[in-house]
Amino acid sequence: MADLVALARASRAAAQAAAGSSGATRDAALRGVRASLVAHKDAILAANAEDLAAAAASQLPASTCKRLDLQGAKFEGLLEGLEQVERLPDPLGAVSLARRLDDGLDLFRVSCPIGVLCVIFESRPDAAVQIASLAIKTGNAVILKGGKEAAASNRALIDAIAAALAPAGLPPALVQLVSSRDEVHALLGLSQYIDLVIPRGSNALVKSIMESTRIPVMGHADGICAVYLDAAASPARAAAVVADAKAQYPGVCNAAETLLVHAEVLHSVLPGVGAALAAAGVSCRADERCAPVLAAAGCAVSPAVEADWGTEFLDLRMAVKCVDDLDAAIAHINEHGSHHTDAIVTEDAAAAEAFFARVDSAGVFHNASTRFADGFRYGFGTEVGVSTHRIHARGPVGVEGLLIYKYRLYGAGHCVAAYGSGAGQRPFLHNTIPSVLPVLPPS
Amino acid sequence: MADLVALARASRAAAQAAAGSSGATRDAALRGVRASLVAHKDAILAANAEDLAAAAASQLPASTCKRLDLQGAKFEGLLEGLEQVERLPDPLGAVSLARRLDDGLDLFRVSCPIGVLCVIFESRPDAAVQIASLAIKTGNAVILKGGKEAAASNRALIDAIAAALAPAGLPPALVQLVSSRDEVHALLGLSQYIDLVIPRGSNALVKSIMESTRIPVMGHADGICAVYLDAAASPARAAAVVADAKAQYPGVCNAAETLLVHAEVLHSVLPGVGAALAAAGVSCRADERCAPVLAAAGCAVSPAVEADWGTEFLDLRMAVKCVDDLDAAIAHINEHGSHHTDAIVTEDAAAAEAFFARVDSAGVFHNASTRFADGFRYGFGTEVGVSTHRIHARGPVGVEGLLIYKYRLYGAGHCVAAYGSGAGQRPFLHNTIPSVLPVLPPS
Repeated sequence: MADLVALARASRAAAQAAAGSSGATRDAALRGVRASLVAHKDAILAANAEDLAAAAASQLPASTCKRLDLQGAKFEGLLEGLEQVERLPDPLGAVSLARRLDDGLDLFRVSCPIGVLCVIFESRPDAAVQIASLAIKTGNAVILKGGKEAAASNRALIDAIAAALAPAGLPPALVQLVSSRDEVHALLGLSQYIDLVIPRGSNALVKSIMESTRIPVMGHADGICAVYLDAAASPARAAAVVADAKAQYPGVCNAAETLLVHAEVLHSVLPGVGAALAAAGVSCRADERCAPVLAAAGCAVSPAVEADWGTEFLDLRMAVKCVDDLDAAIAHINEHGSHHTDAIVTEDAAAAEAFFARVDSAGVFHNASTRFADGFRYGFGTEVGVSTHRIHARGPVGVEGLLIYKYRLYGAGHCVAAYGSGAGQRPFLHNTIPSVLPVLPPS
Repeated sequence: MADLVALARASRAAAQAAAGSSGATRDAALRGVRASLVAHKDAILAANAEDLAAAAASQLPASTCKRLDLQGAKFEGLLEGLEQVERLPDPLGAVSLARRLDDGLDLFRVSCPIGVLCVIFESRPDAAVQIASLAIKTGNAVILKGGKEAAASNRALIDAIAAALAPAGLPPALVQLVSSRDEVHALLGLSQYIDLVIPRGSNALVKSIMESTRIPVMGHADGICAVYLDAAASPARAAAVVADAKAQYPGVCNAAETLLVHAEVLHSVLPGVGAALAAAGVSCRADERCAPVLAAAGCAVSPAVEADWGTEFLDLRMAVKCVDDLDAAIAHINEHGSHHTDAIVTEDAAAAEAFFARVDSAGVFHNASTRFADGFRYGFGTEVGVSTHRIHARGPVGVEGLLIYKYRLYGAGHCVAAYGSGAGQRPFLHNTIPSVLPVLPPS
């Protein structure tokens, strides 16, 4: 095992150096990374072929082998992704508060990197490039831990990336790779050097990370999303939204797992929804009131049990329940959901507003599929992950989730002793001023 | 010990109800709280007199008794503080992102409460009122734990506050009080019900809380702030800023503990600074180069030891060190400081810019005292605390630190299957639109 304290200290030093770098420097580094990947393409693809051969020899599932594969168009996709990140505006130095405290004493809140990130991801080696590019763009240092089945690919990619940093004027330790679980475990104890842990992968991985560290963790353990069909649901919209939310791609966190149906529309809206689900091959775990309606619509139905309301199926199964009113739907979602994304289908504006205000989730959707909860669809470009936490960042997290701010105060020898209500003291002005950082006069 | 799971669940339910409340309801509740405190004034002051008598009988320090005391003008101050919080604009419902994903499919990021806060504070019972008022204003539920020496005062205050909530249409469990350390310890394990812990008090308290919970903690354990006198420091500004930063009120986290002096100004700027420190009664723990200069200026000086660079003195002592250049000053601050607030005194714009960019602290100040790092001085009104963490909120934290956001998506039956580059699929628009939430048409 490498000396992880030394590695983490190097990350902190690299982060402090990168925090002072210009956007032009960081963008030049991204161009250098792209050129380095092109220059090292043969070595990277050879390392990847090694991982693929080992995966085939170990009879890993075809889906894993596909995720591992960097050959052909996948490699070109990596290069395009780097260009896209380079083209994003510089996220650092943005002013979110500008206030004159007194004459000659101006306060600015300015965006800056968080510091050192530790990102833990599973088989896809292209994630290593994506995450490294976001870290470089935002001036954060990152320690990456990839899946062991992608070890050779990740090593070749990160070596190529790190080699491009020094020529661009950034410390190579800005992007580092560790490879074993023991190393991650040791890093999770180094809260003085690591500011944020981002696990990307299975629920089991995320839960295990959350239980193992006092460093803040950004991610989501579960995606138990619900669609609620209100008394005023449009039957056509209900069928379309539920089928898309459940069946368009069921293996992901923003797919719906639970369907709640207002008792008044059990026989008007649910039959069409059931037919749409049946057509998509969805089987239902339904309560007593919904089961016969769904069966009549052609769905495979079995009785729901209590545990179904808290299960992330991630496949073509859905838990279905009848509720007597909007309040019961909201209460069910807040109690059993995972605060990720929940949708109401209704033509009733008041019901939609109540759902927006009272459902305690990162995404609250009206007449739209829960599958829209995604950084790409939201227009964030690359997505770091989805957060179901309630601080810092919530929902799909883009570049903004990797930023924090500093307060810059520009004075001219100002002392607090001058302010107050005593004799000779002054009050503060606290006037809003333009969000433009001052250019200090040269000495 | 009360049933803390039931208590925490009641907080969660109260938070979910309050999240859907209007600003008018929350402001009416604040007026009701004020009226209730007036109506219960005799009982509150009697409870406070009980605490004061017990404190006197236990021979608690005079400073503690003073902090406990709610009689006279202090009680009027509580009422004024409530009015000030009521007058702040409604912080909920602010739109920070508005984007058209496609025709009829609009995304808004809207500020909302975090959920359930647990705030742990020491002797001042007026803090209970201040925190409760911020929680009501922001629609968060709060579980308060006060100091045991203020138990009767806190109980009387919180009873009066909670009594005013139901008449205003908010759940009384929005503001709850626990009184023992065992209860806090049990609450710190309930991460499913509590979203953020805010300890306000001694470093020992904050550190102990941080070690005891996996719930996110917002606060600061140390305030090791530095002032750096650059090669281009103005002697007059240096003397004024250092004396104010160290001596104006030394017992607080934003007071300076460390003075760094560029070698070139050891004999030009430091003598005047030393005289100002001597006049303020400050004794110095100085390195070999600074010690004789400070002694000649009239300061009491003893030799600095390594531990002094990481000590929060909180009194009229200061650690003083000579550095050879700006880089050494920045490296010292990033290594030994607590990332709270650090200041540079210089007339050199480039040095100030480098300090702003590379010092890794919540506050980076140019020619201004570190003592300005404070929510009141920044113009935030009431301050929740100061954060030295690097996520969510950094530096002095006002109402904004108690907020997060939800994504609201307004559709008309939209499904993700319609988007992409396949046949019949559409791209997203991702156009910025006005930050005004739509008014849904009545059904």
